[in-house]
Amino acid sequence: MNTIDPSLIPFFAPQGVAIVGASHDPTKLGYGLSRNLVQSGYHGAIHFVNIRGGRLLGHPVYTHLAEVPDPVDLAVLLIPAPSVPQILEECALRDIRAVIIAAGGFRETNAQGAALEAQCTQIAQAHGIRLIGPNCIGLLDTHLPIDTTFLSPPGPTPGDVAFISHSGAICAAVIDWARGQGFGLSRLVSLGNQADVNETDVLAPVAADPHTRVLTLYLEGVSDGRRFVEQARQVARIKPVIALKVGRFASGQRAVASHTGALAGQENAFNAAFRRAGVIRVDTSEELFDWARALAWCPLPYGRRVAILTNSGGPGVTAADALEAQGLALASLTEETKAALREFLDPSASLHNPVDMLAGASPQQYANSLRLLLADPGVDSAMVILPPPPMHTAGGIAKAIIPVIFTADKPVVIALMGERLIQEAVEYFRAARIPDYRFPERAAAALAVLVQRAESLQRTANHEPAAVNPESIDPGAVRSVLAQHPSQELQKSGGFLHPDAATQILRAYGLPLPYTPLAENAEQAVRYANELGYPVVLKVASPDIPHKSDVDGVRLNLQDSQAVYQAFDQVTANARRAQPEARLLGAHLQRMLPEGQDVIIGTVQDRQFGALLMFGSGGVEVEGLKDVEFCLAPPTPEEVERLLEKTWAGRKLRGYRHIPPADLEAVRSALLQLAQLAVDFPELSEIEINPLRVFSQGACALDARIRVAI
Amino acid sequence: MNTIDPSLIPFFAPQGVAIVGASHDPTKLGYGLSRNLVQSGYHGAIHFVNIRGGRLLGHPVYTHLAEVPDPVDLAVLLIPAPSVPQILEECALRDIRAVIIAAGGFRETNAQGAALEAQCTQIAQAHGIRLIGPNCIGLLDTHLPIDTTFLSPPGPTPGDVAFISHSGAICAAVIDWARGQGFGLSRLVSLGNQADVNETDVLAPVAADPHTRVLTLYLEGVSDGRRFVEQARQVARIKPVIALKVGRFASGQRAVASHTGALAGQENAFNAAFRRAGVIRVDTSEELFDWARALAWCPLPYGRRVAILTNSGGPGVTAADALEAQGLALASLTEETKAALREFLDPSASLHNPVDMLAGASPQQYANSLRLLLADPGVDSAMVILPPPPMHTAGGIAKAIIPVIFTADKPVVIALMGERLIQEAVEYFRAARIPDYRFPERAAAALAVLVQRAESLQRTANHEPAAVNPESIDPGAVRSVLAQHPSQELQKSGGFLHPDAATQILRAYGLPLPYTPLAENAEQAVRYANELGYPVVLKVASPDIPHKSDVDGVRLNLQDSQAVYQAFDQVTANARRAQPEARLLGAHLQRMLPEGQDVIIGTVQDRQFGALLMFGSGGVEVEGLKDVEFCLAPPTPEEVERLLEKTWAGRKLRGYRHIPPADLEAVRSALLQLAQLAVDFPELSEIEINPLRVFSQGACALDARIRVAI
Repeated sequence: MNTIDPSLIPFFAPQGVAIVGASHDPTKLGYGLSRNLVQSGYHGAIHFVNIRGGRLLGHPVYTHLAEVPDPVDLAVLLIPAPSVPQILEECALRDIRAVIIAAGGFRETNAQGAALEAQCTQIAQAHGIRLIGPNCIGLLDTHLPIDTTFLSPPGPTPGDVAFISHSGAICAAVIDWARGQGFGLSRLVSLGNQADVNETDVLAPVAADPHTRVLTLYLEGVSDGRRFVEQARQVARIKPVIALKVGRFASGQRAVASHTGALAGQENAFNAAFRRAGVIRVDTSEELFDWARALAWCPLPYGRRVAILTNSGGPGVTAADALEAQGLALASLTEETKAALREFLDPSASLHNPVDMLAGASPQQYANSLRLLLADPGVDSAMVILPPPPMHTAGGIAKAIIPVIFTADKPVVIALMGERLIQEAVEYFRAARIPDYRFPERAAAALAVLVQRAESLQRTANHEPAAVNPESIDPGAVRSVLAQHPSQELQKSGGFLHPDAATQILRAYGLPLPYTPLAENAEQAVRYANELGYPVVLKVASPDIPHKSDVDGVRLNLQDSQAVYQAFDQVTANARRAQPEARLLGAHLQRMLPEGQDVIIGTVQDRQFGALLMFGSGGVEVEGLKDVEFCLAPPTPEEVERLLEKTWAGRKLRGYRHIPPADLEAVRSALLQLAQLAVDFPELSEIEINPLRVFSQGACALDARIRVAI
Repeated sequence: MNTIDPSLIPFFAPQGVAIVGASHDPTKLGYGLSRNLVQSGYHGAIHFVNIRGGRLLGHPVYTHLAEVPDPVDLAVLLIPAPSVPQILEECALRDIRAVIIAAGGFRETNAQGAALEAQCTQIAQAHGIRLIGPNCIGLLDTHLPIDTTFLSPPGPTPGDVAFISHSGAICAAVIDWARGQGFGLSRLVSLGNQADVNETDVLAPVAADPHTRVLTLYLEGVSDGRRFVEQARQVARIKPVIALKVGRFASGQRAVASHTGALAGQENAFNAAFRRAGVIRVDTSEELFDWARALAWCPLPYGRRVAILTNSGGPGVTAADALEAQGLALASLTEETKAALREFLDPSASLHNPVDMLAGASPQQYANSLRLLLADPGVDSAMVILPPPPMHTAGGIAKAIIPVIFTADKPVVIALMGERLIQEAVEYFRAARIPDYRFPERAAAALAVLVQRAESLQRTANHEPAAVNPESIDPGAVRSVLAQHPSQELQKSGGFLHPDAATQILRAYGLPLPYTPLAENAEQAVRYANELGYPVVLKVASPDIPHKSDVDGVRLNLQDSQAVYQAFDQVTANARRAQPEARLLGAHLQRMLPEGQDVIIGTVQDRQFGALLMFGSGGVEVEGLKDVEFCLAPPTPEEVERLLEKTWAGRKLRGYRHIPPADLEAVRSALLQLAQLAVDFPELSEIEINPLRVFSQGACALDARIRVAI
């Protein structure tokens, strides 16, 4: 587990708290905050500060922070924004080094507010003060306990789910909703504008809480992508981390010029980062807590095989559908299990999975059947389906099966269908911390996330990037190529390097490129072609034409000198017609390569997470087919294999029907080398080899482009 | 609207009901059924029948059905299965022609039960009796009112959502859950084993109920696919129909031999059928009723532009994400709207959509802002986000905005976040029949389904299949080819027609095929090649080798007679080596065609819905790329366009980068002609043209296979 930054400790275990802006007026937030802190049962010292003085809720109100006695190591400010800088200075004088600025009126409002926020940050830095907020709800710990929020009561019940949020309003809804859903929270951290402390900073301190079994995150972004990945990865090894990332359709896409750039986008970057970190991503707020309950309360399964126990066929089928849609499998029961079930179930009961005990199933039948299913070696987890039973009560069945679930080391989730008739059962399950869901589909999703977590822990803990042979790369050569590149040239080309420079750079990192001399005129083209041997390929050369086939600037399979001569004239004429302003350097020649499988490999620098690596189906239809996958660069060996598994282009490399297998190892090498290049030179904003033609032995980059950040 | 089968009327508006198997024992279902009928407030005559006689719940109990006085036109049987045939005979004698067999013990148990069920069906048919069940919960109408179920009280509250279900257990859960969710049901029909009346039969009678505004279906399959589509389509024109189809991963896949067959599957068939019928398909039980409430209670929007009104940024972003994920758009507000909002909102409020009024937003601000948003001509619908407000009550805000929503002709859904603190608001919204959802994501999905419904109604009501020129097809020629085909030959080839026969059949339906003579030896191959003109293509000919490239049985671009001679020997040797048992007929020759775009078109006969038409990316990678779409055959013009829009293969036909546009009209014609062939000859179980090469003018089938059902 990560070590915790000592400067953050006062936020999570303060000796004494000063509330600046405490109020006697019950309609004011300053009163709510004071009330919550007192009512939370906080054991440390509570100090109220308000210029009017007096007493509040049994505590003295100091007129100035300087008067506050020891101990005090955390201040919560709920005062008009313009007064905050002054109070921060006073905090420093009073030796308070942890401050929650609950007040709003900063960066979230206007430029003036942003300037005020910057001023606060400067003061804090100057005095070594850590800040949470501004514009936040504050912090809450149900076990310590402490509550520095101003939310209307009741607060959350104590529990094992921690919630870290960029949004304050969500916190109020989550506390209220969690209470209604019958689960408690351990800690809640509202981060607000994150003038200082951000989502990454609080991961380790929150995870260190022994009462927290699951961390849930509501993220609008991350401040430092790679640091987040590293911290989250360490935390997620120990405790599950689930994230809802919002703002996914936010605009602000950069201008991109490569397929890789066009396809990457913020979402692929986040997905790649969360995968690397082992953070479980949810799509909806509801999933966040559906899954958190399962992860907090259930043992992890050893595999994907689920047994379904039901008293009716329809919901059993729905559950089976939902499980298969989630990638889980219906367990095959052993003959012993079936024989044992047969002894006490209705003769018409279905003993195949889903086990349908029929509508009359008694609490005892539910319990005995579940015990048998959980004992079956072919079963990894179970879903119990419980619509309002016609003959018995759902509560009676709940009471009967809870001891069975408690004594099993396999996860069990409940699809408890209905509302009024199941209330008693709902109460029993929640008290026993067994996750219940209203519908089989949501119960299936919860089982799936348990499997996902188990598999993620089972996978190798090796997150070291796959090794690139250091002798195969030559960063010095790249530096010298880049140094030679005049920046006005780059401005003109939209940042694209001259093809020769791109070739030199890729060669310096061991990427396989054909010999492609540049012919400045048709006669020279013929000379080179004669040298290379026929058939040859001829491509127009211009720094301003990234997609040469778009201007009909490529001629394949030229068989003789006459064809080469004509082709040179044609492609240069085509390019001139299509893009009259483009600078034409002539045409590149290369030996016509044998057939193979054409893939694309590329990198792009993501604003939040740095270099991303892409792999997929190459050619001109890349963006149409969208058969691509991404990972962070440099990739781990596992991530490389995932690129190859998740794309049709990758699966096809193993051979498909009459398509012969291709050199997977050559693709792996190329991916690693390209990724290393992007990592070593972040100024290379987009690198793309399309296609990389893969042969039965070896591979060759037929076309490549490199764009430099300008 | 469909006319209603008069024989079904007694189920939905009986004059008198006889319960056979009424019981005095409160632990028996026969008591529950009697109680529910009496307590339902049913206005017609209630008759109880039990051999023991006496009185029950204020009504006489007759010992025999024959004694029951008029009026009686519906019987509900809850007696041991073996007695049912005898009682059906008595129903006929008593002139009862509508019977609900609630009892179980039939087809759902074993072969004996199935035989008993068949006997019941025969008796019913002989006497003109219509049956619902056996093994069902029965019928319920909250407005008539009537309740012939034996479920534990309370029953559903009166409402506007009808529920038709193949599963009985789901009914109990749905009634209970609906009550908890605060919406009522109009009618509920549990169909059980469907010995007679099935899901299609009840669509029109249920839709005819004036209290029903939405039909929800829980389907495990359909009995007669095309009849279902036709009936559902007529109903869905008038009232929304939403279906949860379960059993999607059910096994029982047929052996298929074509790409089309492999990719079709039950799911694509259901999707195609639901699309044709205008039935809205849901993936989860929760969506079924989330969406039903929106469709029952909201006006339909005129477009996709949504305004979001919130008191906090985070949920606003979540909502915006969810809307965009659903394919909806954030409305752009007019300057007038923004100016008007600015007049009374906090100066820091965000006036761009989402409109964030900030945490202090009052009920009046909510109401006034919503009124302005709904009046904006750029807004088609609105989502109001309401987490527990810090300064006001959610209930107060609900009271303020309900009148605004009532007087608007645009749909408004509420994301009411939390649980306890929002209960009052929940009650207000439910009483006002305004759909509320706990999270913005579910509210967004509800708005999306309203848009889907509106667009489906806006689309042309023309569901006539696209026209095929009758002169371009020659069914007689196909019949004569099929008549010539010896069935033992088909047995040997797994049903595949000889390539020549396939060619003749496709030509008879106007499909464009190249001239492809069959050469039995290398010398003959050379002769044909000389006739055709070089370059040519040579393909091994065998009825046993459906995918010729799999055995390396194809040679392209042969330039002269020597190449043809060698190619013949190679491909036949390759085929012999790969499949020694295959019958080799020689090789087909054809002129090498120019380049073009290769697509696949195919048909397959689905067990439930008949002929399905497929279109997508052709070639050998069809099943790898999975770039295909399906529709029912014959397709409507709209369905043809959808095939072309939803596939990359189709979009690419319009041209993409340097890929020139291809002859879309030729593809449309080929699709229609192939579909017509599959419809006219259902015995052609799979037809596949792969690839159909599409040129800038015209198209040509490069390879085709036809399989006959054997």
